[in-house]
Amino acid sequence: MVKQVLYLDDLKVGDTFVSEKYSLSADKIKNFAQEFDPQVFHCDENLAEDTFFKGLAASGWHTAAITMKLLTESLPFAHGIIGAGGEINWPQPTRPTDNLYVRSTIKEIKYSKSKPNQALLFVETETLNQHNEICQKLDSKLLSFKKSTT
Amino acid sequence: MVKQVLYLDDLKVGDTFVSEKYSLSADKIKNFAQEFDPQVFHCDENLAEDTFFKGLAASGWHTAAITMKLLTESLPFAHGIIGAGGEINWPQPTRPTDNLYVRSTIKEIKYSKSKPNQALLFVETETLNQHNEICQKLDSKLLSFKKSTT
Repeated sequence: MVKQVLYLDDLKVGDTFVSEKYSLSADKIKNFAQEFDPQVFHCDENLAEDTFFKGLAASGWHTAAITMKLLTESLPFAHGIIGAGGEINWPQPTRPTDNLYVRSTIKEIKYSKSKPNQALLFVETETLNQHNEICQKLDSKLLSFKKSTT
Repeated sequence: MVKQVLYLDDLKVGDTFVSEKYSLSADKIKNFAQEFDPQVFHCDENLAEDTFFKGLAASGWHTAAITMKLLTESLPFAHGIIGAGGEINWPQPTRPTDNLYVRSTIKEIKYSKSKPNQALLFVETETLNQHNEICQKLDSKLLSFKKSTT
C-alpha cells in the first residue's frame, strides 16, 4: 500500500486528522523526566503526592513530544511536518495510565506573498486521554508546499 | 552548600537567570527523533541535506526538552517550575554541534485574585547557541507561590 501524502493543493480549512493511541506508563514518564525535567512530581510517585500535582504527572514537554510522535503518524503532509512555532497549553496533567491520541484541525491557510508555492497552515491540535479530557492544546504554524515545489 | 530557593516574595520584574551550557550531538538528535519525531531531517545526516533544513537539525521539541532541563538547573523556584502554557518559536534550527544555554527574564507578575499567595509569572526564555543566535524563544506562564504557602 502506498502511503498517501498531502500537498498544499490537497488541503482545506476544516480538514481534521485523528491519530492512533499511545499508552503512557510511570516508567516512560520517569525516564523522560530523568533526562529533561527531573522535578519530583515527574520522577517519584510517593513524593509527587505532596506536590501541586498530587501524584505522578508527565512533564508537559513529554506530552508535547508524544504529541509530535502522534502527529508524524497522523498528518501525512508531503515534505513532513515543519513547525515555525505555536502556542501550547496544558489544561490538566497527563497521568501514567493515560492512553493518548491527537486530533488536528486546519483552522486557516495563509499563502506566502513572496513564495507562491508555499503557505502557513494554522493547525489546532488537541491531545486527549481515554476520557476525552484535553491534556494539551497546541495551536501551531506549519509550513506546507504545493505539489510543483521541488 | 545549601541551594538557594526563591519564593514569589523574592522575585521581581526584570530578574534574569542564565543557565550552564548543554552540548548537543548528532547521536542525541537522532535518538530523540527516533522516539518522538522520526522525520528524515532529524534522523539522517545525508538525507537531511536535500530537505528544507539542508542538514541534520534537532526536533523543535528536542530543543524544548533541553530548554526545560536547563531551566530546572537555572530557575531556583521553590515548589519547582510549573508551567501553565506558553508561546514557542524556533527562529532557526538547532544543529548537532550546538552548545546551548538559556537566558530567562521575568517580564510580568500577575497576582491571583482568588488565591492571594499565588501568582503567574510571565517569563521570556531564549535558548541560544555558541554564536548567541536564538534557536528557540519561549514565553511561558509559570506558577509561583509566597513563602507562607505550604
